[in-house]
Amino acid sequence: MSKLYKRLSKASGHVPGELIYVGENKSKNVKISLIDYGPKDFQEKIIDNIEEVFALKEAPTVTWINIDGLCRTDIIESVGTHFQVHPLTLEDIVTTGQRPKFENFDDYIFVVLTMFMFDDNKKDVVAEQVSLVLGPNFVISVQETEGDVFGPIRERIRTAKGRIRKMGADYLAYSLLDAVVDNYFNIMEKLGEKIENMEDELINDPSPRTLKTIHCLKQQILFLRKSVWPLRELVSGLERSESKLIAKGTRIFLRDLYDHTIQVIETVETFRDMVSGMLDIYLSSISNRMNEIMKVLTIFAAIFIPLTFIAGVYGMNFNSQASKWNMPELNSRFGYIGVWAVMLLVAASMLFYFRRKKWI
Amino acid sequence: MSKLYKRLSKASGHVPGELIYVGENKSKNVKISLIDYGPKDFQEKIIDNIEEVFALKEAPTVTWINIDGLCRTDIIESVGTHFQVHPLTLEDIVTTGQRPKFENFDDYIFVVLTMFMFDDNKKDVVAEQVSLVLGPNFVISVQETEGDVFGPIRERIRTAKGRIRKMGADYLAYSLLDAVVDNYFNIMEKLGEKIENMEDELINDPSPRTLKTIHCLKQQILFLRKSVWPLRELVSGLERSESKLIAKGTRIFLRDLYDHTIQVIETVETFRDMVSGMLDIYLSSISNRMNEIMKVLTIFAAIFIPLTFIAGVYGMNFNSQASKWNMPELNSRFGYIGVWAVMLLVAASMLFYFRRKKWI
Amino acid sequence: MSKLYKRLSKASGHVPGELIYVGENKSKNVKISLIDYGPKDFQEKIIDNIEEVFALKEAPTVTWINIDGLCRTDIIESVGTHFQVHPLTLEDIVTTGQRPKFENFDDYIFVVLTMFMFDDNKKDVVAEQVSLVLGPNFVISVQETEGDVFGPIRERIRTAKGRIRKMGADYLAYSLLDAVVDNYFNIMEKLGEKIENMEDELINDPSPRTLKTIHCLKQQILFLRKSVWPLRELVSGLERSESKLIAKGTRIFLRDLYDHTIQVIETVETFRDMVSGMLDIYLSSISNRMNEIMKVLTIFAAIFIPLTFIAGVYGMNFNSQASKWNMPELNSRFGYIGVWAVMLLVAASMLFYFRRKKWI
Amino acid sequence: MSKLYKRLSKASGHVPGELIYVGENKSKNVKISLIDYGPKDFQEKIIDNIEEVFALKEAPTVTWINIDGLCRTDIIESVGTHFQVHPLTLEDIVTTGQRPKFENFDDYIFVVLTMFMFDDNKKDVVAEQVSLVLGPNFVISVQETEGDVFGPIRERIRTAKGRIRKMGADYLAYSLLDAVVDNYFNIMEKLGEKIENMEDELINDPSPRTLKTIHCLKQQILFLRKSVWPLRELVSGLERSESKLIAKGTRIFLRDLYDHTIQVIETVETFRDMVSGMLDIYLSSISNRMNEIMKVLTIFAAIFIPLTFIAGVYGMNFNSQASKWNMPELNSRFGYIGVWAVMLLVAASMLFYFRRKKWI
Amino acid sequence: MSKLYKRLSKASGHVPGELIYVGENKSKNVKISLIDYGPKDFQEKIIDNIEEVFALKEAPTVTWINIDGLCRTDIIESVGTHFQVHPLTLEDIVTTGQRPKFENFDDYIFVVLTMFMFDDNKKDVVAEQVSLVLGPNFVISVQETEGDVFGPIRERIRTAKGRIRKMGADYLAYSLLDAVVDNYFNIMEKLGEKIENMEDELINDPSPRTLKTIHCLKQQILFLRKSVWPLRELVSGLERSESKLIAKGTRIFLRDLYDHTIQVIETVETFRDMVSGMLDIYLSSISNRMNEIMKVLTIFAAIFIPLTFIAGVYGMNFNSQASKWNMPELNSRFGYIGVWAVMLLVAASMLFYFRRKKWI
Repeated sequence: MSKLYKRLSKASGHVPGELIYVGENKSKNVKISLIDYGPKDFQEKIIDNIEEVFALKEAPTVTWINIDGLCRTDIIESVGTHFQVHPLTLEDIVTTGQRPKFENFDDYIFVVLTMFMFDDNKKDVVAEQVSLVLGPNFVISVQETEGDVFGPIRERIRTAKGRIRKMGADYLAYSLLDAVVDNYFNIMEKLGEKIENMEDELINDPSPRTLKTIHCLKQQILFLRKSVWPLRELVSGLERSESKLIAKGTRIFLRDLYDHTIQVIETVETFRDMVSGMLDIYLSSISNRMNEIMKVLTIFAAIFIPLTFIAGVYGMNFNSQASKWNMPELNSRFGYIGVWAVMLLVAASMLFYFRRKKWI
Repeated sequence: MSKLYKRLSKASGHVPGELIYVGENKSKNVKISLIDYGPKDFQEKIIDNIEEVFALKEAPTVTWINIDGLCRTDIIESVGTHFQVHPLTLEDIVTTGQRPKFENFDDYIFVVLTMFMFDDNKKDVVAEQVSLVLGPNFVISVQETEGDVFGPIRERIRTAKGRIRKMGADYLAYSLLDAVVDNYFNIMEKLGEKIENMEDELINDPSPRTLKTIHCLKQQILFLRKSVWPLRELVSGLERSESKLIAKGTRIFLRDLYDHTIQVIETVETFRDMVSGMLDIYLSSISNRMNEIMKVLTIFAAIFIPLTFIAGVYGMNFNSQASKWNMPELNSRFGYIGVWAVMLLVAASMLFYFRRKKWI
Repeated sequence: MSKLYKRLSKASGHVPGELIYVGENKSKNVKISLIDYGPKDFQEKIIDNIEEVFALKEAPTVTWINIDGLCRTDIIESVGTHFQVHPLTLEDIVTTGQRPKFENFDDYIFVVLTMFMFDDNKKDVVAEQVSLVLGPNFVISVQETEGDVFGPIRERIRTAKGRIRKMGADYLAYSLLDAVVDNYFNIMEKLGEKIENMEDELINDPSPRTLKTIHCLKQQILFLRKSVWPLRELVSGLERSESKLIAKGTRIFLRDLYDHTIQVIETVETFRDMVSGMLDIYLSSISNRMNEIMKVLTIFAAIFIPLTFIAGVYGMNFNSQASKWNMPELNSRFGYIGVWAVMLLVAASMLFYFRRKKWI
Repeated sequence: MSKLYKRLSKASGHVPGELIYVGENKSKNVKISLIDYGPKDFQEKIIDNIEEVFALKEAPTVTWINIDGLCRTDIIESVGTHFQVHPLTLEDIVTTGQRPKFENFDDYIFVVLTMFMFDDNKKDVVAEQVSLVLGPNFVISVQETEGDVFGPIRERIRTAKGRIRKMGADYLAYSLLDAVVDNYFNIMEKLGEKIENMEDELINDPSPRTLKTIHCLKQQILFLRKSVWPLRELVSGLERSESKLIAKGTRIFLRDLYDHTIQVIETVETFRDMVSGMLDIYLSSISNRMNEIMKVLTIFAAIFIPLTFIAGVYGMNFNSQASKWNMPELNSRFGYIGVWAVMLLVAASMLFYFRRKKWI
Repeated sequence: MSKLYKRLSKASGHVPGELIYVGENKSKNVKISLIDYGPKDFQEKIIDNIEEVFALKEAPTVTWINIDGLCRTDIIESVGTHFQVHPLTLEDIVTTGQRPKFENFDDYIFVVLTMFMFDDNKKDVVAEQVSLVLGPNFVISVQETEGDVFGPIRERIRTAKGRIRKMGADYLAYSLLDAVVDNYFNIMEKLGEKIENMEDELINDPSPRTLKTIHCLKQQILFLRKSVWPLRELVSGLERSESKLIAKGTRIFLRDLYDHTIQVIETVETFRDMVSGMLDIYLSSISNRMNEIMKVLTIFAAIFIPLTFIAGVYGMNFNSQASKWNMPELNSRFGYIGVWAVMLLVAASMLFYFRRKKWI
């Protein structure tokens, strides 16, 4: 999440349906992993040759094909041809920067959304596009790079924990979506901590650096919001869709997922309100500080300027011999002490005035 | 309501439907109280063993089981199993931080919302999640901790005051919701007083502390708003739901509850408008104050700087013997008095100028 | 309209349907006035015993019972019982601070809204809750205190002016609503004048007092808005309701009333936009003023500080006998005049510089 | 458009349906002009006695009666009676300040909207209410004063240019609406020029006068918006209305009119955005200017204050004969020159410092 | 995109359906190019005489007539007559400044939208209106000037690449729309770069020029937004329209186009949020800078004003011979050194004070 503005990855001017990968990850490594399971059976392997998986298409078991990497458009094309995926869907899969959406085709359901992960090395949030193709007994998931939030699901399939092994491909697809949305809560929590720290800094010790951080937070939240808002429509569309691919028992889980989505969206909105309020607070804090600076200046100036004037008066060189009206104080016995007394009086009354104004 | 940002209590990465309590209240004490009543019968007791209540399920009387404490997930699970509650509902019950919602299952209606109470000890508002499961002749209410706003309802059941003893479980559920919403008005009133005090302070004596308080109020209102907004949908959904569990006679009360909900929402919105206007007022107040400081500085500087200059002139050491053009004033008879006259004139005209500008 | 924040008058914790008056007007005087009329008949009287009116219920004439004062809940309860009014309606009547709404019961239509009047003594706007119960041939209106905007309607009934004597109870109810909404225009006009005066003050002579007045206006408009917005739904609901109590001929008048309501709402919205723009103008005006102060200070400082420096230089006591390089100017013939010339030159060039910058 | 806030012209407290003219134009002159045409026939005249036109009601030709002036409510009442217009419609016609709307009665369609014209004499925009009553073969248009934007339509009827003479009264009504909406584009263009000029002034030379003009522009746009927004609903309502008075061939023109209306609304919205952005720009410009003033002050102060201090030091009268430590510089050979050197060095380093800070 | 406010090109006061070109491009050159193709056939030519193309109307091949230039309204009129286009459509074609829209006529579909191109010479974005008339087997596209974004489509038709040669006129129309929308992404990217550069400048080195650029960017985004928003409705309307002119196979592509449109709209909205946030950041930056200036001033003033005062004191001419109380320091042995010590102490404590306040 280092940047809000992702280079828009639409390759303009090409033939609609043509597959051109436009993302930044140019590594040619594509990793295809396969998990195939039923209530009793289970196999898992990394495969090199995409054709290996085609045999499983007709089997009654649930087949989960996960593809990490988008560069090898030929692999994606061959999968597409074999599983009868529409060219426009394939184009959406390889064109990163898609808006999260759900499309109901005759034979399959296509879902694309953004997955956020916290990269412990970079200490930063990483965003990646995930596409899901849900068929009668298979799920194809395509990601930009390796590394995802699906670990616990793989573990549950392996250990047959929970109901996942007993349910169909639709429940698997739900589980994947659920894992992605669940992970949003982690990202939210990290963001929430950042905002809280920011708030303390804001009120206690605002600096130009604070401004940069607020701006940065704002951008991140804008970006998150853009990824999160369409989810609402996506999940409610899935739940209400009349596709035969989604069993009634799974829909109740989708409703649960929908609730989580709403919660994520509301949290993002709350964060947005909080951060946008911060800038106002920041401006107020700066104004307060300016007030304080001005006060110091005014107090110094108002006390010493009159004193300096008095000192200046008795620095004048009027000839006291030319006239007895010319600065007789200079020759008076208590002149000097008197002047000091006057000056202290002036200073004291200024201080008193400022104290009454509550400036000091 | 000490904090807007409640740690998001979604335990990510777990199996959907699994019960894991994630809240902050780790005390192992769970208190189960039972009230069972009909138009004529009434019994009330604290029970230790949850199985005791299962016998009442088939009885025609209304059974109200209230559970305080979420840690003993086994109790909640056993209740769930006995009363045929869906695992996802149980998950929602133990997972605090839920968005208020209402779900219509075949055999029961599930409602979850936030209860606010004013804790007289802490002098602060306390928020707590309350879940209601409304079945044909029972209501199960689950709260995070002991202490609630249901005292008057218990009293009414005990004394058979009002119509509650004559109505069914749906009316009991309505009464519980009504008690929660009613209590929002108390919270509103406390908040309203705070806002009024703030306003006086804002205009008469704004300080950086005021800024903090405004920020804090804003957060509290944001939090309240988040809890209150979904209520509208919740109550109107309940009223319009076609569930057989809600009798026609109760719906008219739900419509009344709906009106109260709208009133709470509108009050929160008004508070929000008022507080967000306050920051503008604060900024204006600060600017006004800065203006005043600047005026004081400018008046002092503009009066004394010219005077000091004049004094400086007659402090110059030009040799009046070298030329009669060199500072003849110094030897003039009325030089000193004349200079004072000039200086007073300058000061007076400056003062006159500032008065005409309405600065003093 | 002295205060935006009316103490919320919901008595929390009581039995739904119980009548408890919670308003501020505790006087025990309740005035019941009765007007009974048909195309030909007409009678009007002040009654002491509420039972007197019950006889008229069955008569074909239109009966208008007006009750001023909410304290005697027994009277309202007895009317309610006699005219078959639902307890929740009675509760709404005595609980002030209701949101304007309309409810369609089987036998009657219930309308509650806020009436604004300009109190010539207090020179302020007074708000009061008015409830209307429209039955087949009667209208019951309940107000908080004496004094209302229904005078012209009484006059029209007495003198049989217009169509009112020929129409039914629904037209009477419409007339009462119309009178309340009509009076909003008067309040708007007074508010509009205030805003215009404010605007002149704002641009010509902004002061901290202006800030208070803007804040106050904003609160008043917020309050008005809260009372006025629900009217739209109320009136359009009445117009489209399928109740048999409202004749087709009256609906066309309700459509007219709806137009007026929209106009009131739009005016309130315009006022809101205007007032919220004022704060920005105010801030800009203050900034302008600060600029002006800064200019004065800067001009004074920039002119006199260099001059004072020059005077200071020739006040130095370098011994011109120790070296001919030490301040020979002091002994020069035209030293003093030359210094004055330099100082005037400096001042003039500063003034020229500031004029070119358009500061003076 | 001299004023946003038009005195609200609802005469409160009167009988609904009563005709009372409340506008500002009190002249008793009412001008009634009649144009009667068919594909072949055409007559045009100014009539004094409204009864003259009643004969044409039954004729198959299209009759256009235009009434300028609202004071003679008796004329409007007699027209209303003759053409079976509902009293509430007549009330709307004479009550200026109506919200643009369209009402579908059994025998006629009533449209009321605001016409804007640029008055070349006053160099200002003038707003006037226009009401249209469209019957089977007649159109009655009522305006507040003489002078309108219908000249080209009259010309087209006279010269039989375009299709107008071949079409019915509905096309005439469309043409009148189209002329009013078309003229909005002219007003927009004038407003657009004003905004552009404002923008240049804003960035190049903002002054308090600019603030007034922005405020004024904002009010005008608010007023325009209020008149323009309801048009959308009005025109689309007309187009979709099932009235037999509007022929299918005319509806396609109404769709075109609808597009124009949308365009007018969007332009007003754009203007609004632009003007509301201007205030922010203005505030920023003022802040920039303040910065510049502060810089000048700070530069002067920071350069001369140290120099003045140095000069002050050597103006001290320490007796160098009392001790050889007392100000030996004064008697040094190069004292004076040395002090000048130090002072120039200080000034130069300050200038260098400020240049590095990019202040000069 | 040099200007937001395009002179509104509605020629008011003319007969509806009359063709008057009101744009700025007055060159009389109109270029008509023709591409006619089927799965096998293909011809392309520039034609001078519009009648040449009419023969192709009945041919089964797809005919694409592209007209560059709107001045020769006679050509457009003759095309309109021949292809049975409604006069109002022709008026929309020649009247530039249309809001993007889609209209479904009996025999054809009319689409008008704005095409943005980056002009490499002017280094600026150019906007131009494009109208499409889609008939059974022809597409007429009309542009304001030569130069468009349709090059790749022509190339695909020539080389029979992709499916375009096998599909009908509806697919051609889709391709043209797709090319226009695709090109928006390029414009977005350029705008996105500008915004990023602006952001860096904003935080690191804000200047009044930055303000101008922000204002300018805001206007451009407002203009883009106005062109882009109606596209949503346009494309979804096309997709859902029941016109027989659009084959089912093409609708799936329109759905894809719809997704792109949404993406463009969301990007514009994000840009808008970013730019509108920039102004706040700018204001904060200026305030920060002002703070810094004030600090420098205050530090200088607060250090040197007391020192200057001290120097002033010892510049007073009190006669130490008149009294031993008169300035004995002047004759003291370590007077001068002592004064210096005091002055250094004052300066040091001031510096210490400011450091503790974190000003230096």
